[in-house]
Amino acid sequence: MSVTGALGPAVVALGGGHGLSATLSALRLMTHRVTAVVTVADDGGSSGRLRDELGVLPPGDLRMALAALCDDSEWGRTWRDLLQHRFRSSGDLDQHAVGNLLIVALWEQLGDTVAGLDWVGRLLGARGRVLPMAAVPLAIEAEVVGPADGSGEPQRRVVHGQSAVAVTRSRIEHVRLVPPDPPACPEAVAAVEAADWVVLGPGSWFTSVLPHLLVPELAAALHRTRARRCVTLNLSPEEEGETAGMTATQHLQVLHQHAPELRIDAVVADPRAVEDVGLLVEAAASMGARLLLRQVRSGDGTPRHDPLRLAAAFRDVFDDYLGDVGTPSR
Amino acid sequence: MSVTGALGPAVVALGGGHGLSATLSALRLMTHRVTAVVTVADDGGSSGRLRDELGVLPPGDLRMALAALCDDSEWGRTWRDLLQHRFRSSGDLDQHAVGNLLIVALWEQLGDTVAGLDWVGRLLGARGRVLPMAAVPLAIEAEVVGPADGSGEPQRRVVHGQSAVAVTRSRIEHVRLVPPDPPACPEAVAAVEAADWVVLGPGSWFTSVLPHLLVPELAAALHRTRARRCVTLNLSPEEEGETAGMTATQHLQVLHQHAPELRIDAVVADPRAVEDVGLLVEAAASMGARLLLRQVRSGDGTPRHDPLRLAAAFRDVFDDYLGDVGTPSR
Repeated sequence: MSVTGALGPAVVALGGGHGLSATLSALRLMTHRVTAVVTVADDGGSSGRLRDELGVLPPGDLRMALAALCDDSEWGRTWRDLLQHRFRSSGDLDQHAVGNLLIVALWEQLGDTVAGLDWVGRLLGARGRVLPMAAVPLAIEAEVVGPADGSGEPQRRVVHGQSAVAVTRSRIEHVRLVPPDPPACPEAVAAVEAADWVVLGPGSWFTSVLPHLLVPELAAALHRTRARRCVTLNLSPEEEGETAGMTATQHLQVLHQHAPELRIDAVVADPRAVEDVGLLVEAAASMGARLLLRQVRSGDGTPRHDPLRLAAAFRDVFDDYLGDVGTPSR
Repeated sequence: MSVTGALGPAVVALGGGHGLSATLSALRLMTHRVTAVVTVADDGGSSGRLRDELGVLPPGDLRMALAALCDDSEWGRTWRDLLQHRFRSSGDLDQHAVGNLLIVALWEQLGDTVAGLDWVGRLLGARGRVLPMAAVPLAIEAEVVGPADGSGEPQRRVVHGQSAVAVTRSRIEHVRLVPPDPPACPEAVAAVEAADWVVLGPGSWFTSVLPHLLVPELAAALHRTRARRCVTLNLSPEEEGETAGMTATQHLQVLHQHAPELRIDAVVADPRAVEDVGLLVEAAASMGARLLLRQVRSGDGTPRHDPLRLAAAFRDVFDDYLGDVGTPSR
């Protein structure tokens, strides 16, 4: 393991959707050795339709991750914009993202998921690599507690499917995958094992961040790797949906519940997203982690990570452990 | 005008579909300066659906022309195969060609037809350029004579739409465009004016070859240009469809009827596709052309042009006029 060198540290980023894009937009500024390991449980929108129609992995989160890693040139930006382009019509193509169609076509053409993603990466001149967290399409189920119709007595029940879980108004207690033991993507397992750092979050906590811990081979690699682990917390609690009302500390606790043996080295949080610093420090420490409080949000008032600020925070985190290389404290 | 030089002669190929692909596959072997000017009247299949749904030029013939010009490398062939890939499903995407979707998305993204096609050309490392013959989607109408239902008295009537014209069982007397005076693609007009050679055919005669002569500005450029003109005839009469039973000589005569003032310098034909050489020589001469008889078909028994043989025939044709450069005989 080497966390220095001209290419930068080897970093594996786990997640999906906009949260993972934010992480990748930051990491691309500080290292050439990025591997995104992306959730494949989406069942809504363009991805859900492609999954239903063609029996493929949902490509949307993979597409977004690739777009975030594109080369910063006219070439890279043009193809990125094209991949992100959505058709709008009153017909069959409405809302399909072009990149989703391109990725799926490459899979059909090449018969190889990873090779197809690598070709899109070459098209974009992507800095790094994008891999699926599992080799088969997944479903997410959540055990929730709440009134089924928004009123009446709270009941325990199961919500099926990522898009339903993401908007549930009930409190999520636990998520699981269907099938429960999907094969991991071997290249993703290898990347985790060879990494200097593994980064989890930000993102939809139950549907984009935790699922990686539920793929057995990937979870085993995450526990086994000599890489250090960093959790980036979300900028603000959701007003609605899967993590409505959950504090920063509770996000960490939920992570701990889903992977009780997982040790963490660092937690990155924006001060304005933390209600009680003492509690968060305590929760982080209980998992082995130091807390880094930094403004990582953008200055425009939107709840988005600023790539430069997040990159600088990662630099602080990674450098903080430079002296410890080879002598993990755990 | 220069017909020699390291880059080869500047050649503009007019047509559509498989016929134009055959021409381009040959031309790419002998010159770097190829411009394909492609029919945009298709109303069937994937192209027809995209045209209906999104109000764009039908992209299919443009896609095929770009594919024929792709760079002969792993990169070029991979993207070519992807562009030619068709989805197969029981759902919305069935039979859509990936390249059609990509081209249309680039048009939407860039807001510029020619720029979009140039980007696909860059993706493929294409040798040459592909342009539409008109700036707006066209329809083809044919005046035909024949029994409307395949029996009874022959009647004169009008068949509407390229896909209907292509399969008509009646004899086509004349084709016209709707609208009758579409704006040409300015880059296509400029390419014709700057060319050393313009090549027409092979291909579906009424729906892919003749339409170029019906776009006023393009037709004017074809008459005005100092480029020499070569017509490549089809390999075999169709058994059914728009040119069923038409001889090679009749193909030339139909061309003459649709553009009576157009002079031609050379006609390339495969000996096995010519019923009466004397008649064909006469028809060619009446338009100013010499006839070159060469085996240009592939050796596998299929009615397809062999790219190497066709390229060699073009070389013969072009070289035959080298001494005449600057002193056109007309």
